This record gives sequence, structure tokens and C-alpha cells, in this order.
Amino acid sequence: MSLGEFDLIARYFKRPAKRSPLGVGDDCALLAPAAGMQLAVSSDMLVEGRHFLSTVDAERLGHKALAVNLSDLAACGAKPLAFTLALALPSVDEAWLAGFSRGLFALAHLHGCELVGGDTTRGPLNICITVFGEVPAGGALLRSGAKVDDDIWVSGTLGDARLALEVFRGTLSLPGELFERARARMELPTPRVALGQALRGIASAALDVSDGLAGDLGHILAASGVGATLDADACAAQVAIGAETNALDVDTLRACALAGGDDYELCFTAPPSRREAVEQAGREASVPVTRIGRIEAQAGLRIVDAQGRPITQRYASFDHFG
Amino acid sequence: MSLGEFDLIARYFKRPAKRSPLGVGDDCALLAPAAGMQLAVSSDMLVEGRHFLSTVDAERLGHKALAVNLSDLAACGAKPLAFTLALALPSVDEAWLAGFSRGLFALAHLHGCELVGGDTTRGPLNICITVFGEVPAGGALLRSGAKVDDDIWVSGTLGDARLALEVFRGTLSLPGELFERARARMELPTPRVALGQALRGIASAALDVSDGLAGDLGHILAASGVGATLDADACAAQVAIGAETNALDVDTLRACALAGGDDYELCFTAPPSRREAVEQAGREASVPVTRIGRIEAQAGLRIVDAQGRPITQRYASFDHFG
Repeated sequence: MSLGEFDLIARYFKRPAKRSPLGVGDDCALLAPAAGMQLAVSSDMLVEGRHFLSTVDAERLGHKALAVNLSDLAACGAKPLAFTLALALPSVDEAWLAGFSRGLFALAHLHGCELVGGDTTRGPLNICITVFGEVPAGGALLRSGAKVDDDIWVSGTLGDARLALEVFRGTLSLPGELFERARARMELPTPRVALGQALRGIASAALDVSDGLAGDLGHILAASGVGATLDADACAAQVAIGAETNALDVDTLRACALAGGDDYELCFTAPPSRREAVEQAGREASVPVTRIGRIEAQAGLRIVDAQGRPITQRYASFDHFG
Repeated sequence: MSLGEFDLIARYFKRPAKRSPLGVGDDCALLAPAAGMQLAVSSDMLVEGRHFLSTVDAERLGHKALAVNLSDLAACGAKPLAFTLALALPSVDEAWLAGFSRGLFALAHLHGCELVGGDTTRGPLNICITVFGEVPAGGALLRSGAKVDDDIWVSGTLGDARLALEVFRGTLSLPGELFERARARMELPTPRVALGQALRGIASAALDVSDGLAGDLGHILAASGVGATLDADACAAQVAIGAETNALDVDTLRACALAGGDDYELCFTAPPSRREAVEQAGREASVPVTRIGRIEAQAGLRIVDAQGRPITQRYASFDHFG
């Protein structure tokens, strides 16, 4: 069965437009942020074998493709508005398209984020989403605002997605039920959209953890011109699924927490005077927040254990060209 | 030589930010259209073998990747502001990246269009650009505004890009100098950005011709609920390079003009009372505009020759999944 490009768009991706004056189908979509608001924009491209395994369920992939973009909006404290989807497909597989669009639109609907345009073409599987959110002018959370003595926080859990990846790679094994939960963390990440908005005016800097906490935190340090000390064991304790089995040694847990990748949690900084406000933001957003370190004047990232002893192991960020 | 993702972004794609409060490198870019303006947004994905040949020069590809997106803004009458770039590359080839970014930024600079964000990953070559432009609220050119008795116009020339493609495919041959010019039309399309803006308030409907004139015009007819008659020979006369050789028969010229693809000209409609205004817009934008047909109440597209005789040959649009 063969569907043409325009039929494909109409069948799987056309939805009545609400937010945009035009829906999918004209040359451009039209967007206007409300008065006093800026538009936050982010693009992410997902490639088979790099960002997802070829075996992933289409519905989960539809979720993840949008989730990683919403996570960028969350990191800026922006409220999701709309997105465009560009999709290269090796063939028209209607079961795959139905699943993909189901997962995509379920998450879009949850966040009131509307598909306003896009492009489809034949080619090696590639999913490129550009997402648009709204943030009060001057109110976006940036990477560059961390100050000496700020606490470093992380939301939710760390490293569980990496556990699942290592099971797929055959370097680890987990009991079936724990593996399925780790796999869900890898394939169905939860963008911390409500938390990002709740942290506006509280966090001094923020980003989302996609390539591994230690490396990603390095971007905040570089942009802010500061250094930090990070508590590796406070991070390792955030590997929720790892904590439920005694099959994993401390080095594995630290590595998954600090360099796991695919977490889509928020790492952010805030002055110690705002600790209660941060905790309150976490409660409002129904996501735990944990202090894992401290911003310092001395450049560089120092990683210590629970007793404050330096750990010399290097935790490199996932680099798509490394 | 190996460059990491972040080095790659910094070396080839980082530019001082002017329009965006943030440049490349934070989680999101921030944009705000001026008061009373809407943001026009379009995404296009380019895949090797579908949108460009693997032999194309990297600098020309950088130009084309942005040009096809600017062409969508032109079709809406929007002024370019900014774009994001997502790039999947099979390997880090510095000569290729240097050429690609040179072509990309030369065109971006010409149109005052700033790179504000993006993503790079390893994968089969894929270029996804999302472009942002500004248009007065309510002033965008849409596909849906064509009215019965409106003239149908096209800008510039048609079909020359297709001539080059057919030479590459070995189905045609052209003298060397003509081939190089046709190849430049295929590889270095000129988005009609100034014309699109000049046509605001004059054209009743518009789109850009990317998949072939006859098929693309069909989108205006469908969106506007009208039909049309198109003069195939007026269209064939727009094949500028074809007109310089007697090696091409009339059927080839008509087919290239009506179904060639890759033209990136504007096809638009306007009331006969606005003919002088249309001509003036063309002069202001330094691009010829030609009347090629008429909007009619009767649904469907009728194609006739210079004597008004029906042509029954079907000119299908290029369909990326056909």
C-alpha cells in the first residue's frame, strides 16, 4: 500500500489548528507570543542507532521525539505552545505511522503543544522536531546565571535509562521487571515542563540532562564562568532502579548517574537562601529535587564521594561525534 | 582528525547573536516578533538522493538548504529573521563543513537571517532547517485566497533545474555552458524573498513552486475551493535555458515547466485590476513576473496550449513518497 506525501500528512499529522492562525498545510505556520512574552525555540534531531534503537516501539518513539524537545523548553522555564515535525522515512509503514503519531500526539496533548507544520520525505529514518514555547521577556532560565556558593540540584532520577541501554548492549543484566522500568525511562522520558516553569525566578541557571550529568553541568560552569564540586554518591543514590538491586557496584552506579545520558531531568543552580522555594517548586510540579553539589569560584568540576574525598575517574559526556 | 559535537558547533556554526537575546548554545533560542507582527515558521528536511545529488558541492548545498526554507517565507510574504539547523553527518569532514557553512551563512547574511540554534549528530546525511520570519498580523499570503477571475502569475523562470537533473540522469544532453547554468538553477535556487514581501496586499494567494508548478498550483486551488486554466505554452516559454537551444521539443519544455520541480519561484494569484501593481512589485524585487492562467469557478486544473486547445497530458507533481 502506498500513500503519497500529502495523503500521509493529512492522515497522520493533520489536526484542527487552535493556537496557530494556520494549521498544517500552508507554506508557513503563523505564531504570535502573547504581549510581553518571548518565544523559546529548540530543535532536536533523532537518528536510529544514536538516539533510539531500531527495535523501539513506534508509539514510544513518537513520545520520545517530542519529549526531548519539550525537555529543552523545560530547561528554559518555557510553557510549550507548538512544534513542527520533519520526518524522513525509508518507506510508508502505516502501522508504524499510526503508532508514532499516537505517541507523539498523546504527549503533545498533555502539554497543550500543537503541531503547526512540517515536512515528510523518503530517506533513512530521521525525526527532526522544532518546538516553540512562551516565556516572560527576560524570564528564561539560562545556563549562564550560576553564582559562587549556589547549590546544584537535579530533578527526578538519574542513570536508569543508561542501565537499560547497558542491558541491551549485554554488559549488564537486570531482573525482568526492573529492566522494563529502566527501559521505560530510556524510551519514555518525562520532560520536566512544570518544574521548569516553577523554577523561574528561583533557579539561577538550568539545563536539561541529556548527554550525562557531569558533562552537561560543565556547560553551566563554562557559560557562568564558575567551577563546582559534585557529590558522586548523592548522584549515585538517584539511580532509582539501581538502588533496588544489589547486582550493581558503586562504580557502575556513579557512572550511570554522572555520565549515563538520556535522563531528561533538569540540573539547576539556586542560592542556598532559596532552598525552601526550590523544594516547593518540586512539590508543585510533583517531582523530587535533590541537592548534589555546590558552585565554586575555582574553575573546573571536582567530583567527590560521600566523605568528600576526590574521585579521579573521569565521567565524560556522551558526544555524538566522539 | 576528530572534532566533538560541541567543538563542531563552535567552530562552524557559532556566530555572534544579534537578533536573538541568546545565541547558539543555550537550551533554547529566544525570539520576539515586533509589536503587531506574527512569526511565520517553516521546516524543510533535505535528504541525499531526494533533494540533492551526492556529488553536489558542499557550499552549494549550504546555500540550497537555507534557500528552500527562505522560499517558504517568501511564499507567505514574510521577512526572514532567524533559523535553526539540525544536521546529521556520517562523519566529521572539515572541508565539507567549511564549505557547507560558507554557503549557508552567505545566503543567511544576504537576507539578514540569523542562526539561533540547532543540533548536530552522527547519521546518514540529513539537513533540517526551521526558518522564522516576520509578517504583519493578518497580512501573510496564504494559499486559500484565490478568487474566480484572478490571474495566475509565476515569477522568474521554470523548469531549468529539471533540465539539469535530466542531464545528470542521462536522458537529455545540453551544451556545457547551458548545462552549467541549468545546474546552477538546480543547486543555487534564488528564494523570491523581496517579491513575496512586495506582493503583500496585492496577491490573493501564493505558494512557492518546489514540486512542480501544476501540482503545486493544485494546492492553491484546493485551499481556495476554485479551479483554473493554465497556458502550458506560456509556462514552457519560461524555461529560459531551454529557449536557448533547439535541442528540446515542446513536450519536454512543457513537462519541465509544469512538473519540473526545484524551481523555488512564486506562483500567485491576483485580481486583473492589480496587474500594474503586480508588475511594479516584480520591478521592485528585480524579478520578472508572467501571467500564465486564470482562476475559474469550475473545479480542477485545465491545461491548454497557446491556441487554447486542451492538453490531456497529466503533469504530476513530484511526490516524495510516489
